[in-house]
Amino acid sequence: MKWRNGRLSLLDQRVLPAEEVWLTCEDCQSVADAIRDMVVRGAPAIGVTAAYGMALAAKEGIDLEDARQMLLATRPTAVNLGWAISRMEGIWRKSGGDWKFLKTEADRIMEEDIEANLRMGELGAELIGQVGCVMTICNAGALATAGYGTALGVIRSLFRQNRDLMVMVPETRPWLQGARLTAWELQRDGINVTVITDNMVGWTMKQKNVQAVITGADRIVASGDAANKIGTYGMAHLAAAHKIPFYIAAPWSTVDMKLASGDDIPIEERDPEEVKAFRGLKIAPDSADAWHPAFDVTPGRLISAIITERGIAQPPLNQSLRALQ
Amino acid sequence: MKWRNGRLSLLDQRVLPAEEVWLTCEDCQSVADAIRDMVVRGAPAIGVTAAYGMALAAKEGIDLEDARQMLLATRPTAVNLGWAISRMEGIWRKSGGDWKFLKTEADRIMEEDIEANLRMGELGAELIGQVGCVMTICNAGALATAGYGTALGVIRSLFRQNRDLMVMVPETRPWLQGARLTAWELQRDGINVTVITDNMVGWTMKQKNVQAVITGADRIVASGDAANKIGTYGMAHLAAAHKIPFYIAAPWSTVDMKLASGDDIPIEERDPEEVKAFRGLKIAPDSADAWHPAFDVTPGRLISAIITERGIAQPPLNQSLRALQ
Repeated sequence: MKWRNGRLSLLDQRVLPAEEVWLTCEDCQSVADAIRDMVVRGAPAIGVTAAYGMALAAKEGIDLEDARQMLLATRPTAVNLGWAISRMEGIWRKSGGDWKFLKTEADRIMEEDIEANLRMGELGAELIGQVGCVMTICNAGALATAGYGTALGVIRSLFRQNRDLMVMVPETRPWLQGARLTAWELQRDGINVTVITDNMVGWTMKQKNVQAVITGADRIVASGDAANKIGTYGMAHLAAAHKIPFYIAAPWSTVDMKLASGDDIPIEERDPEEVKAFRGLKIAPDSADAWHPAFDVTPGRLISAIITERGIAQPPLNQSLRALQ
Repeated sequence: MKWRNGRLSLLDQRVLPAEEVWLTCEDCQSVADAIRDMVVRGAPAIGVTAAYGMALAAKEGIDLEDARQMLLATRPTAVNLGWAISRMEGIWRKSGGDWKFLKTEADRIMEEDIEANLRMGELGAELIGQVGCVMTICNAGALATAGYGTALGVIRSLFRQNRDLMVMVPETRPWLQGARLTAWELQRDGINVTVITDNMVGWTMKQKNVQAVITGADRIVASGDAANKIGTYGMAHLAAAHKIPFYIAAPWSTVDMKLASGDDIPIEERDPEEVKAFRGLKIAPDSADAWHPAFDVTPGRLISAIITERGIAQPPLNQSLRALQ
């Protein structure tokens, strides 16, 4: 994302890698639309985008409460959204709604996110060490953050330790962020990727010597339970069955210590039609029902460690997260 | 499939349910092409189709050995193919290659398959009892067999016991046999289906009270290990993690007692481009690698029971399968 001439430009992630289209948001409403419609996705990126949305709201003279509601209503699961909005709210109140202060704060959130990713990359690579093959899910890369990436940040750092690293990438239906975004990002960095379908995850673990699974998160609660892209829950169970360590990399802005258990996390259910079609192409009978939870919750007991910029939380996660707070 | 005027008509399963197109095979080569190119798929259906291919070969005067090789080379994993071909070979030798005898034998294989499916349906429904929600994978239905289906045969019989039965159907990438074929078949019978993406399997088990998983198989060996559509292996692990019984329904023609272990089953690897695209629509960067194993092997220890028309094999599967032989 880029701020140019008082407007926010967003790379439309729905059409990558086939097309590189930049959308321009001139007001808060168009930022909210872009988040809801998945022009931009990924918990940290949503947070930064919403911060700029708040700056645009102040610029166009929208009421603070209206701006807050407009942005908060877009997507319920990622806590970074609420985190960024409430941080911007503080500046709004202090500055009396001067949009230039808000723009500066959004820049700061963006820079801090990049720094956090670089730090997580270092810490994660040190923790995981020399590995030949890892797996991830969805896109927790530069596109999902302000830059470098959470899970893909760790993978980028692992690549520096081993140039032959292979990353197994499930396509991640229904939006295909794995096949479209993660494969594209890693290829551009010269990192080997192998795209698989989502139902190959278990068999790939068995046959391809996967040594670590690394994912991002949309919300981590006090117990260590973590919401992330649908499929993460099954992947964590399969990693456990294959004795493969399962890591989460996420900035502290993703941690929600106010919630005790994963059961408390609101899970966004999106339009089932997104499941019944493949980029506009119908793949199931019209009359068939479909279910579309966009996220799932991985229980803390299946997580080997949570990598944050503040340090690494290891089991028991409830204690180690509290120590980092 | 239908035999009409000395030719074999096949419903093209690659374009269902959007279109109902029948392809006509006039010779053995076109039957072999149809199997390899997935016009028809599903282990029992492949067996029956190959049997008619042998009849056509005799009719056009092809040499027995050439016909055998042409059909055997199409797809390596399903043992029903080799089983049907060697049964036809016996009749070929006895009848001196009289195609009418071969056609009659193919009819018999087809009828026996339907009878086997009906019997498996009865046995499976009796074993599983009253359930509200089950899961399957791919298509092990009428389209995958001569009629009624293996796993879907059991599900059809379960539906007679409970009209409110819900069937959770993962779409089954890359060919989408779950979303396209299973949802279509079950809907036509008035059975409730919910289509999910393949990465929702674990979360669906946790959230939707799935009480049994029922799949077909492409080859079951003496130990009880079973090859089936890619994704079955992961699904079986996830069923175990959720304490959900995992059943396989397959006719005895799918059992290969000559192989001791699942490690001995040849696993077909198909073109990786099938993973990177859907019906010509590119979903991954051209330069990214992909992997496309079409099947995986579920270890016998994860299988609660194997339902065959000869009876139900329960653990220890090596002993119970031998008893049914």
